Amino acid sequence: MQFDTSGDEVLRAGYEAQLNWTTALVEDLKTEGVIRQDVPTRWAVAQIDQLIWVAWTAVSEWGLSPDDTATLAQSTLLDGLGNLSPPRQRT
Amino acid sequence: MQFDTSGDEVLRAGYEAQLNWTTALVEDLKTEGVIRQDVPTRWAVAQIDQLIWVAWTAVSEWGLSPDDTATLAQSTLLDGLGNLSPPRQRT
Repeated sequence: MQFDTSGDEVLRAGYEAQLNWTTALVEDLKTEGVIRQDVPTRWAVAQIDQLIWVAWTAVSEWGLSPDDTATLAQSTLLDGLGNLSPPRQRT
Repeated sequence: MQFDTSGDEVLRAGYEAQLNWTTALVEDLKTEGVIRQDVPTRWAVAQIDQLIWVAWTAVSEWGLSPDDTATLAQSTLLDGLGNLSPPRQRT
């Protein structure tokens, strides 16, 4: 198994920029009370990061609609998948 | 960049076995009403799969305690990170 590495530096820089952007977003969301203050910022960033990838897979490979997937990603992040916590309307 | 591929088949088989086990777990949790019925099983499996990896990183690299991380992983899965849905006691 071999990978073409010519784009590695560009990819890495782009990914780091995205993580920095997501970190700033999470800090804002914690300040605004959307995400709980007791959640470690790195943990929340990792959750958003993986949700982007899983959502991309859901649309491109599983055939979920982009709208349903966006709703599912948001409710997964903020409300979880548990039956005791159905998604609430956030306006 | 090159990887040693000698263990690939074993790794893949182990990972697939773990995903099959997680899929059966998610189906049970949906039947028991712990995870909402409207959540696609593959989506829930992907969430558990990533939480295992993020939790491992949190303990091994960020210095979170195993107990705190397990609690955080469970509340992330079932209750989310949102301020409107603080983790509930599940017994």
